[in-house]
Amino acid sequence: MRFPPIMRNLKRGPQVVLPKDFGMVAAFTGIGKKSVVVDAGTGSGFLAIALGNIAKSVVTYERREEFAKLAERNIKASGLRNVKIKSKDIFKGISERDLDLVTLDFADSEKVVKHARKALKEGGYVVGFLPNMEQVRDFVRELEKNKFSEVFTMECITREILVRESGMRPENMGLMHTVYLTFGRK
Amino acid sequence: MRFPPIMRNLKRGPQVVLPKDFGMVAAFTGIGKKSVVVDAGTGSGFLAIALGNIAKSVVTYERREEFAKLAERNIKASGLRNVKIKSKDIFKGISERDLDLVTLDFADSEKVVKHARKALKEGGYVVGFLPNMEQVRDFVRELEKNKFSEVFTMECITREILVRESGMRPENMGLMHTVYLTFGRK
Amino acid sequence: MRFPPIMRNLKRGPQVVLPKDFGMVAAFTGIGKKSVVVDAGTGSGFLAIALGNIAKSVVTYERREEFAKLAERNIKASGLRNVKIKSKDIFKGISERDLDLVTLDFADSEKVVKHARKALKEGGYVVGFLPNMEQVRDFVRELEKNKFSEVFTMECITREILVRESGMRPENMGLMHTVYLTFGRK
Amino acid sequence: MRFPPIMRNLKRGPQVVLPKDFGMVAAFTGIGKKSVVVDAGTGSGFLAIALGNIAKSVVTYERREEFAKLAERNIKASGLRNVKIKSKDIFKGISERDLDLVTLDFADSEKVVKHARKALKEGGYVVGFLPNMEQVRDFVRELEKNKFSEVFTMECITREILVRESGMRPENMGLMHTVYLTFGRK
Repeated sequence: MRFPPIMRNLKRGPQVVLPKDFGMVAAFTGIGKKSVVVDAGTGSGFLAIALGNIAKSVVTYERREEFAKLAERNIKASGLRNVKIKSKDIFKGISERDLDLVTLDFADSEKVVKHARKALKEGGYVVGFLPNMEQVRDFVRELEKNKFSEVFTMECITREILVRESGMRPENMGLMHTVYLTFGRK
Repeated sequence: MRFPPIMRNLKRGPQVVLPKDFGMVAAFTGIGKKSVVVDAGTGSGFLAIALGNIAKSVVTYERREEFAKLAERNIKASGLRNVKIKSKDIFKGISERDLDLVTLDFADSEKVVKHARKALKEGGYVVGFLPNMEQVRDFVRELEKNKFSEVFTMECITREILVRESGMRPENMGLMHTVYLTFGRK
Repeated sequence: MRFPPIMRNLKRGPQVVLPKDFGMVAAFTGIGKKSVVVDAGTGSGFLAIALGNIAKSVVTYERREEFAKLAERNIKASGLRNVKIKSKDIFKGISERDLDLVTLDFADSEKVVKHARKALKEGGYVVGFLPNMEQVRDFVRELEKNKFSEVFTMECITREILVRESGMRPENMGLMHTVYLTFGRK
Repeated sequence: MRFPPIMRNLKRGPQVVLPKDFGMVAAFTGIGKKSVVVDAGTGSGFLAIALGNIAKSVVTYERREEFAKLAERNIKASGLRNVKIKSKDIFKGISERDLDLVTLDFADSEKVVKHARKALKEGGYVVGFLPNMEQVRDFVRELEKNKFSEVFTMECITREILVRESGMRPENMGLMHTVYLTFGRK
């Protein structure tokens, strides 16, 4: 698995957001160095750190204490100072406002879509990281119910190409699926 | 084709770098708001603008006048002030130094690898946008000859998932191939 | 789109089963020259003809008269004499017995799974051609309810590789999705 | 890995042709129960057996004794009586004539293209099983030099879709690449 330098000293929990999926978020939302972001379901903090590397600031919600600690350590190791962890239950609401992006990476995340809508500025994006098709359907429905525009879902498959003296070919085994990414724009 | 808001008012030339491929560059190089970038083979300027949106500054080389004009207009339309066009032939060298990233999107780009090496800072990346397998092989060889480390090649396929009342399914037709992305780290 | 010679003189209706998906059925069920097959949802007859080309005999159910006529003409054009059309509603049952394979390619095909079970011999396969994820779920549930073993679902993506003097690369545009294939073994 | 029943009692050597790739050959050549086939590079015999299951007869060339023995045992276990092993070096020629299909699965197989041409009947196919891009290029060139028509190359990726109470999703890890299949028609 390939990771950019900023990710390499981090400790990995059971599941981390992979560069390819972060790359899709950066590519399709167009966030940049002026963007203000809320991330939820911090986990090991990989997505929060990747976002913090390009955005102005990131607040990342994590209510499970052991993950918050792991992420805290990882954020420190990354050297970023614009990423803050918040030990709050995002199902109860998002206190930030005028956000450019809200990323949601946890089960039942469709229940937070209405909070994301309030927290986003006009034109801002919410993105769900959704392992299963049923979650995609539920997330899309909630986006439509909450009048998000530009609702779309992508999957991204990357394949490494091996270039050797003996010949060029794609790697034999690889990642076929991580998550579907569902986007909605306010 | 999905484009982020910053790309939507731009005029497209015959071939543009797509968000998915820009996303891979952002994801695997870890460039961020402090990064200084040289892009070459500006074309319509889509990659330069996407990079400018997250990097500190971008200089983009384009020797063909009509493309330089189109890109100039697109950069203006994007509102970015940190992206500069340079009407210079990159085969003759890169004048910038201490770069975090050099992106090369034109034929025979392997001939510029040695210039990229000089222009990059330690740990910086060069990325080739390579439509054909033969170009990948030539680019990889040149990277190895020039002592780049972490040489790897990726392809990225994105598929949109349609979520409708009548059922969820991937889109029927789509982009199977754009370019291979070959990375080298100094 | 590539078709084998036997398919080339046929008239195509709005949607035909593609060689790649027929190939998956041949590959994963292991049908051969002794196999007795029922196909339902004849359409233009492409799947029935592809199956007839390798199986001992195929009966194909089509209740819509205009399709039955088109398929009749196509079967004649193929030169195969072991493929018979039956103008019967398969929702009312399958009269054949001891089948090696039943293929179902129409909406609500999960309702025919119980009939397929009766018609199959021990070890025989039913295969659903299912455009949507919801259909996959319903078909799988029905297979499980009817005590099929070895229930699995595959999707198959083929990509043509262009080999030209100017370079080798995958085709740019192509088919991202046709159907999911759900298999059950009695 | 999914295999059809006829493959399940076979002993697997280091590399076997997978059902998906056999399925592509069946699908795009249109071989059937009247087809006469030569296969070369028997290995464990998986391809020869899959072909024998649908074709009239298969002769499979294997010059390495230990593989010929393994394949012999596998052919016996499959119950097929129309598959014969030939301990001959196919680089020296193919003695059979009027073939419908020649499959080549070994290094330097492009050198056998000229023999395949002689052995095929008009309209017959040769198919190369080619792990690397360079082999594809060499095989295609040899086909063109030998005036084959309909020269094309396919890759086939299959992905299993898991359907569980907890949700539907593609498998996480899987086979990204086995071989490219290059087809030529006489």
